[in-house]
Amino acid sequence: MEYVKFFSNVADWAKPNPIRRLTALINRPGIISFAGGVPSPETFPYEQIAEISSRLVREKGAEVLQYGLTRGNPKLIEYLVNQMQKRGVQTKTEEIMLTSGSQQGLDLLARLLAEPGDVVLAELPSYIGGTFALNNSGGTLTGISMSEDGIDLDAIRSKVIKMRDLGCQVKLIYTIPNFQNPSGITLSLEKRKALLALASELDLLILEDDPYGELYFNTPPPPPIKSFDTEGRVIYLGSFSKVLTPGLRTAWIVAPSEIISKVELIKEATDLCSSMLDQAIVAECVRQDLIEGRISKLREFYQIRCQSMLSALEKFAPKGTSWTRPTGGLFIWVELASQIDTTELLSSAVEQGVAFIPGAPFYVNDAKTNSLRLAFSKETPERIAIGIEKLCKIF
Amino acid sequence: MEYVKFFSNVADWAKPNPIRRLTALINRPGIISFAGGVPSPETFPYEQIAEISSRLVREKGAEVLQYGLTRGNPKLIEYLVNQMQKRGVQTKTEEIMLTSGSQQGLDLLARLLAEPGDVVLAELPSYIGGTFALNNSGGTLTGISMSEDGIDLDAIRSKVIKMRDLGCQVKLIYTIPNFQNPSGITLSLEKRKALLALASELDLLILEDDPYGELYFNTPPPPPIKSFDTEGRVIYLGSFSKVLTPGLRTAWIVAPSEIISKVELIKEATDLCSSMLDQAIVAECVRQDLIEGRISKLREFYQIRCQSMLSALEKFAPKGTSWTRPTGGLFIWVELASQIDTTELLSSAVEQGVAFIPGAPFYVNDAKTNSLRLAFSKETPERIAIGIEKLCKIF
Repeated sequence: MEYVKFFSNVADWAKPNPIRRLTALINRPGIISFAGGVPSPETFPYEQIAEISSRLVREKGAEVLQYGLTRGNPKLIEYLVNQMQKRGVQTKTEEIMLTSGSQQGLDLLARLLAEPGDVVLAELPSYIGGTFALNNSGGTLTGISMSEDGIDLDAIRSKVIKMRDLGCQVKLIYTIPNFQNPSGITLSLEKRKALLALASELDLLILEDDPYGELYFNTPPPPPIKSFDTEGRVIYLGSFSKVLTPGLRTAWIVAPSEIISKVELIKEATDLCSSMLDQAIVAECVRQDLIEGRISKLREFYQIRCQSMLSALEKFAPKGTSWTRPTGGLFIWVELASQIDTTELLSSAVEQGVAFIPGAPFYVNDAKTNSLRLAFSKETPERIAIGIEKLCKIF
Repeated sequence: MEYVKFFSNVADWAKPNPIRRLTALINRPGIISFAGGVPSPETFPYEQIAEISSRLVREKGAEVLQYGLTRGNPKLIEYLVNQMQKRGVQTKTEEIMLTSGSQQGLDLLARLLAEPGDVVLAELPSYIGGTFALNNSGGTLTGISMSEDGIDLDAIRSKVIKMRDLGCQVKLIYTIPNFQNPSGITLSLEKRKALLALASELDLLILEDDPYGELYFNTPPPPPIKSFDTEGRVIYLGSFSKVLTPGLRTAWIVAPSEIISKVELIKEATDLCSSMLDQAIVAECVRQDLIEGRISKLREFYQIRCQSMLSALEKFAPKGTSWTRPTGGLFIWVELASQIDTTELLSSAVEQGVAFIPGAPFYVNDAKTNSLRLAFSKETPERIAIGIEKLCKIF
């Protein structure tokens, strides 16, 4: 039977995520992997989560094993009001909802805000899951270049004006301001304020995706763009995936209540509610201070790995190679001499026992094929040094 | 700030689910509730799930707390190949994927198969979550009446022909063949075969949603429509929500691999993966035979409640009232004298301490406002008898 005639446009829009497609190749036993941008399982509080999960099922099973609120666990939402305040954002429970990971938040927001005919601005490079979600709702992604202090504001202005002159509907800027995936770049304080002012001038919404902000090394990044938002122009996404565990699919959106109500309606028809046990476990981890109480160790853990990678790059990288020096997060971005195609390098790297992600898929347009992403989260500092030495020989 | 200008069409399509909106009203303490169509928490195997969850986190935490496969837990998928075989469906792992509840399956399939301009046929009445998901993707729902043995096949034929004459694209029939939510009706064996033949004749796909099939009382329902499907025309949805627990959001789709691959791509940008812990717990429950080993008790549990409700209706229902006599599932459907509007009755019923769901929202068109849904899953047989007596006085 031919199925294509039954398919909607979404079937054409939905593309395989190249990173997830590389998984089989990358997960070879023994390989030194700088590929997957996942938190280190060494950082998970196993014993506490084991104890919490069984106790919740025994004591609150009728709640945590039953259907629940689409909006999410109310205790966790209350905690997030406080947590957001610590991050400089004044909010209230009506402006917060939980999602099954930030990926679900991005997808729900994409469905609410982007449809065929809409243009969404994204950083060059950007997080693939974010741009894919926006694309699957029918939005057209267009890229804005970045420099060391973040997205290029002049490029936003000229692009928006040009596209609107052409009759395009430009609604939204998608940005990851802290230790960006994939580049490791952080948007400076001045640019945060200027970006918000520009969004106001051009009447754009900002999608501020912040899964990494708490994973800073020495000094916190500037406050979220959302903290300067007096108009209700910024939609903020936070996540427990990198500071607790990603398998318990729990993240949150902070947005004006009109937007939250709509997102809640869409989520209702999407999955009724997120995993009740996951949310309850995360809420209890919060109560036991397993996130904030462990965060300084987590920061140190990743800083050591980042440092090991930066030192090895310094030592072994051939001339003509440049890389970012992130002050937090999980990623370093590398650019090789311009004639090198990193996609072609990957198979020989894997043969030598090292994996990375080629940079091209992170670009919604104008891909730099000489770039690549290195995640320093998975390997020990020793293996990082060995892996980078091997990799630099291949470069 | 005005947000409407930023919203896509989905914002208009997404409507509040009237059942979930009634929750606050219905969940008053002490109320006898025939409203929520949720499994009884008395049936959840708390102790075993408590033990399983902590053991999984301790022994397999690096897997169950980490990101995982979009397609879902491979062990659970393997089990489902066998489980489907017991239900009469020959399938293989490439034709199965897991979702966060069947609601997510319905939403993903809606996104793949329904877009503006497409007509989807649904039963009158039908499951609200299903029709809402199809509607949120832009599909136009149109209803087909049912009789005691299920959906009206002649009405399908004449409607499809008429709509196609008008230039409409009709792709899909959405059906819940076993102990349907909300009506309790089961599609007969003859009609299953005839429906499939008709779908083939008219070149339609069938979405067969089967969360209740295992909850039969005395004799199993006829085999799934999917079991007769030689062409690959049926997409089957199964769920652990009613036979284990719904809070562990785990369900599955069985479909031709071309469809599964596309649904997997869409899910990838939707949430990367479902809760890893939920899936692992369900897989371990399966290994410990906590589903099939407990199912006969579960059937008996709900049969006693259904019987209590049927007896009380027999005893107390006023003349002019009719109701279905389900042979499984969680629901009885009632029709009162035609001049009565059950939506208007609800508040006095709640005042008297009894809740139900008015029938109108279950109809995608031509609502019978004199109908209502009674769930017999939540209350004890004694409270069911008391509640029905009270309710019948109000009727």
